[in-house]
Amino acid sequence: MNDRPDRLAAAANERGLDLLLVTDSINLRWLTGFAGTNGAAFCGPAHRDFLTDFRYTELAESTLTAWDVHTVRGEWIGGVAARLVERLGSGGGRVGYEDDHLTVRTLRKLEEALAEASGSGRGGAAPAVTLEPAGGLTQSLRRRKDPAELAAITAAAELTDATYRQTLEQGLTGRTEAEVARTALAWMREQGGEPSFPPIVAAGPNGALPHAVPGERRIASGDLVVFDMGAELDGYCSDCTRTFAAGAVTPEAGETYQTVLRAQLAALEGIRAGITGMAADALARDPIAAAGHAEQFGHGLGHGVGMEVHEAPRLSPLSTDTLLEGDVVTVEPGVYLPGRYGIRIEDLVAVTAEGHRNLSGLPKALEPAP
Amino acid sequence: MNDRPDRLAAAANERGLDLLLVTDSINLRWLTGFAGTNGAAFCGPAHRDFLTDFRYTELAESTLTAWDVHTVRGEWIGGVAARLVERLGSGGGRVGYEDDHLTVRTLRKLEEALAEASGSGRGGAAPAVTLEPAGGLTQSLRRRKDPAELAAITAAAELTDATYRQTLEQGLTGRTEAEVARTALAWMREQGGEPSFPPIVAAGPNGALPHAVPGERRIASGDLVVFDMGAELDGYCSDCTRTFAAGAVTPEAGETYQTVLRAQLAALEGIRAGITGMAADALARDPIAAAGHAEQFGHGLGHGVGMEVHEAPRLSPLSTDTLLEGDVVTVEPGVYLPGRYGIRIEDLVAVTAEGHRNLSGLPKALEPAP
Repeated sequence: MNDRPDRLAAAANERGLDLLLVTDSINLRWLTGFAGTNGAAFCGPAHRDFLTDFRYTELAESTLTAWDVHTVRGEWIGGVAARLVERLGSGGGRVGYEDDHLTVRTLRKLEEALAEASGSGRGGAAPAVTLEPAGGLTQSLRRRKDPAELAAITAAAELTDATYRQTLEQGLTGRTEAEVARTALAWMREQGGEPSFPPIVAAGPNGALPHAVPGERRIASGDLVVFDMGAELDGYCSDCTRTFAAGAVTPEAGETYQTVLRAQLAALEGIRAGITGMAADALARDPIAAAGHAEQFGHGLGHGVGMEVHEAPRLSPLSTDTLLEGDVVTVEPGVYLPGRYGIRIEDLVAVTAEGHRNLSGLPKALEPAP
Repeated sequence: MNDRPDRLAAAANERGLDLLLVTDSINLRWLTGFAGTNGAAFCGPAHRDFLTDFRYTELAESTLTAWDVHTVRGEWIGGVAARLVERLGSGGGRVGYEDDHLTVRTLRKLEEALAEASGSGRGGAAPAVTLEPAGGLTQSLRRRKDPAELAAITAAAELTDATYRQTLEQGLTGRTEAEVARTALAWMREQGGEPSFPPIVAAGPNGALPHAVPGERRIASGDLVVFDMGAELDGYCSDCTRTFAAGAVTPEAGETYQTVLRAQLAALEGIRAGITGMAADALARDPIAAAGHAEQFGHGLGHGVGMEVHEAPRLSPLSTDTLLEGDVVTVEPGVYLPGRYGIRIEDLVAVTAEGHRNLSGLPKALEPAP
């Protein structure tokens, strides 16, 4: 990861920025390795500055050896502004900021602090430092996972698979959704993982609420159970959904399951570097629409996964992304029939030049679970 | 909680706003009870509108009976803008938004979508809808906890106390920081709670890193151990820190502990409705400074706790808040000696007209733990 600051500085430079200010905690961790709750970094051709407060001074100085570490004392934004002005010198410059992360209020405060720090607040001159929106720049570099990142995501996916297997061994029928979720997470945590998002265990009609909270519904024989879960391990996430049959389900539900599975397999077939997120989505959406369920697949096909469980790129009818080698994305079509049941099947895949590597190892045939 | 929309609409009206748009998920949950991941509400004298996407339609319609529930299909911000314009009618109006939550990019998109929806994008006329920063308005109402909220926070604090007791029964000496944290959280979760933040277990010199991540350091006899932990239960948080002695500590460390404890008790003495956050902070800071540790108490005295573990008000040298009846705040002075040890003692208290009610029930005398 040592070339990340260089790559980001180069990308910022291409946009005509003198410095890029990184404040989003995930971008900051990707860039510097810093995992504390308060920090900021800026980098440009000649600078690698990291700012934190006194709580993290020792940690930052001992771990961020490639960075100039500064401790801000007193008001945070004023401290960041003072350091930016100092770095840019009397000539000023253009500073990119994360407009997709910074709040309206923080931007206003930063503008005021920059005017103050550069003296333009007093002298009436134009501010020497101009702020320009540059949100998404770091995220675009984060898309291409390096081998260490792919290994970390693979480990998170394997932990998710293992958690599913462990949970299914204990059976589903007769347990509540909440119990199933609780025991799954307890086991995952014993292995050193954390859930990458609150899991979904949604039985019967609850499965038609795609983001239902696991509740007190007791899983009954004949229920379809949508189970969506992921692990976070060493800062990287996984995401996997399976729909299980508790006992035997109706032939009609079994048929809908096959439709979703066919759609999922069709999309997987097409996943490779160069396909657009919109085209990948259509590969799954078309067979679902052909089966008469166009209206019941109300979300996109998938999303990127990495340090965040939802990150770039998007695979959806509205996506403007094109898949790249190194992207890790979910492929997760679903059909939701209100009042009846839901079905979603989701794999996590690493995109390669020729196709993809599937990181989710669980079977997808609809076999009755105990 | 049924009067919350009325109180918020009235507060917005006092600021000359026709509608207040609430998008922050915690504010939204406080206002409506909705705990999903995507929603928005706006309220004004005559309107109670709630928007979500198809994933939450069923949930919202069945639980948010006091609200007009709308499902946004397609692009989210455009859907919110269209509904705002529809509600305000041809006369337009002033809409408050959470500038402390909305990103710069989202505000820009909302402005564009409002211009589009109100027709001014095409006709060139001034936008009928103006957006005005109103961040903090909902948070200011959230400060005054009602009896049900106080009961929820008390339950979360009791769970935290019980988790401490359970953890100490298993001893500290010889276990790693990470083991102690892991077993504490596993027990807390078995009781139905979740940590309200990643706990801190920091032994010996690690205690001088106030926000250290629990690591592989094995707690040794003679270590001071800073243990900072809180529970979230039914949407409400608690927060408590104790510093334990693993075996006997040096007389000098014992003396510093007494300084921090005296400071903490002095601050508690002064906590009541009407004291300023700055004055409360000084009650603890002065004795610490008198003992020669002014530079080693590098954070504020405390913060509000409720649906968030850090919320209004602030108790610090920079605070402009005054405590109100119904505030729930932490009182947590600390002294951190780099390379040696740290000490922090934190109680959670409910502010009353005459004083406070301490929600943290653990003893504070420095007794050697096993």
